Amino acid sequence: MVVDTDVTMTLDEVRALARAVLTEQGLAADHAEAVAETMVAGERDGCTSHGLYRLLVAARSLAAGVVAPNALPLAEPSGKAIVRINGGGGFAQLAFETGKPALIAAARQFGIAALALNNVVHFAALWPEVEALAGEGLVALAFTPSHGWVAPAGGTKPVFGTNPIAFGWPRPGRDPFVFDFATSAVARGEIELHRRAGKAIPDDWGYDADGQPSTDAKAVLDGAMRTFGGHKGSALAAMVELLAGPLIGDLTSQESMAHDAGRGGSPLGGELIIAIDPAGFLGDEVGTHLARAEKMFAAIEGQGARLPSQRRYAARAISLRDGVRVSARLLADIELLRKKA
Amino acid sequence: MVVDTDVTMTLDEVRALARAVLTEQGLAADHAEAVAETMVAGERDGCTSHGLYRLLVAARSLAAGVVAPNALPLAEPSGKAIVRINGGGGFAQLAFETGKPALIAAARQFGIAALALNNVVHFAALWPEVEALAGEGLVALAFTPSHGWVAPAGGTKPVFGTNPIAFGWPRPGRDPFVFDFATSAVARGEIELHRRAGKAIPDDWGYDADGQPSTDAKAVLDGAMRTFGGHKGSALAAMVELLAGPLIGDLTSQESMAHDAGRGGSPLGGELIIAIDPAGFLGDEVGTHLARAEKMFAAIEGQGARLPSQRRYAARAISLRDGVRVSARLLADIELLRKKA
Repeated sequence: MVVDTDVTMTLDEVRALARAVLTEQGLAADHAEAVAETMVAGERDGCTSHGLYRLLVAARSLAAGVVAPNALPLAEPSGKAIVRINGGGGFAQLAFETGKPALIAAARQFGIAALALNNVVHFAALWPEVEALAGEGLVALAFTPSHGWVAPAGGTKPVFGTNPIAFGWPRPGRDPFVFDFATSAVARGEIELHRRAGKAIPDDWGYDADGQPSTDAKAVLDGAMRTFGGHKGSALAAMVELLAGPLIGDLTSQESMAHDAGRGGSPLGGELIIAIDPAGFLGDEVGTHLARAEKMFAAIEGQGARLPSQRRYAARAISLRDGVRVSARLLADIELLRKKA
Repeated sequence: MVVDTDVTMTLDEVRALARAVLTEQGLAADHAEAVAETMVAGERDGCTSHGLYRLLVAARSLAAGVVAPNALPLAEPSGKAIVRINGGGGFAQLAFETGKPALIAAARQFGIAALALNNVVHFAALWPEVEALAGEGLVALAFTPSHGWVAPAGGTKPVFGTNPIAFGWPRPGRDPFVFDFATSAVARGEIELHRRAGKAIPDDWGYDADGQPSTDAKAVLDGAMRTFGGHKGSALAAMVELLAGPLIGDLTSQESMAHDAGRGGSPLGGELIIAIDPAGFLGDEVGTHLARAEKMFAAIEGQGARLPSQRRYAARAISLRDGVRVSARLLADIELLRKKA
């Protein structure tokens, strides 16, 4: 074991570093700004795997030519409760920022609306997006496929991506109720961490290339991961593929993997976000019914169970006051990346 | 063990029996017709727990005064992509049939639309509803709470219902891709079957009233069930409560249970159905992209894994040809019910 130390940084310092590195790697300024914000959010909320570490991931996609560094996200006209943004092969963040105002407006106009991001490269979590919409008083659902890494229940060969589902619910005067989880048994990064550390994984995380359950992290990365929750998780993984793939005319996880052609880039494809305005159902009774939801949250927390995202929100409160601790080794890796640029 | 035999019936005989019994129990003819169809579908697809057996369940709710037998479902006006039906305390089926044409029209007009059924009594599965919408070429999601029976992950006291999620996807020329599962670890009926048979249940299905994991079916029925898939299933159960409860101004599972006040009736509350028209995203390219979805299904089935609902569809093919086999003991119980009416 090499001993790591860490360094305290303010969130402004994290933001400045992320923007500088992304720009040096060739990313256009508007994209760099949008992508940096998700890294700031990751560090701020204690999700270090979605923080500055992702500079290395983004740099790899940029170097491999997987992502268009100057893509201009374009809204496609629609008279419906549907907003489509063609991301032009760029990172998803700017495409989301481009579509967000139209999605919010459509949800308020029609009661329910959907935003499809097409042709975007994904390497971040979905919670910043549903949290932003919940912050506008909307209920939000988000789905995206990834690369074909996960076997369906009853099989052992990869079909699905890690296919996350995210949900946001507004809580007036409080942080929104937000969850965001992979429909795979564990995050792929978790298996990668075990591989790097030379540690065995539980035998119910995945299969080797011969379709046998395996405790060898590398064998499972080269074979197939399992879904969470047996056939139910598998059904949800298929739903995510369909909703954020063929439904919006975009790639499935297997197609994204084929398109990557071994370059090791982040997944390319689509994302579907559904936003619902409670006022569309409730009119001026929104406050009354949101208060009833609070009773359910109280029944959960009152028995010592935690709501999703509470750990993130607790970390956020500390980060906003004290800054964040960043691994010195990660910062050294980032400096190395900058020298190569 | 008492030996049971069974009797062959045509689907028309099942339909006639269900309608007759429901009418004798005091249910209005239009409701009896809509409710009978879900029982026919249950018998037809081999889901006997949602077949004629449900006559006993419906009769109990009617006798207990939990359900309004003559309720007239009323559409509430909306200029949005939202359809609301107030079911007037009647069974959900007629409310769904009343709202379905408007939901389909709204989905085609706006690309995405939502149907809220309010103030309805639920005792059936959700798959007939998403399957019907998928049969119209739409993608459909459905959610409903039930009674407060299920503990959140990290807790041991009931908050959620069994809270099913159903999804339907159109497959031109084939039966739709449909799933419908409870977010509880198992169906409540499964635990009831164990109790009646005097059989122990696995210790990870639920907790007794003291919050201890238990293998005693009755203790878990009186205590709390678990969600499937740990904290992920628990998050989804909370989402179902929120979407089909407070979002549409209707009861949570705990509130439904309180309203039942020990009468043992079926849950009262709401249901949310979201319908999406692929043409809203894809225009005249729908066929091309639905064909891409078929490749994903082929990748699942090609490795020997099953798609959800395949067992139902196989049973259906046989039932349509040969009729269905119904338990003679169940038919005797139904005759007993008729004599009491």
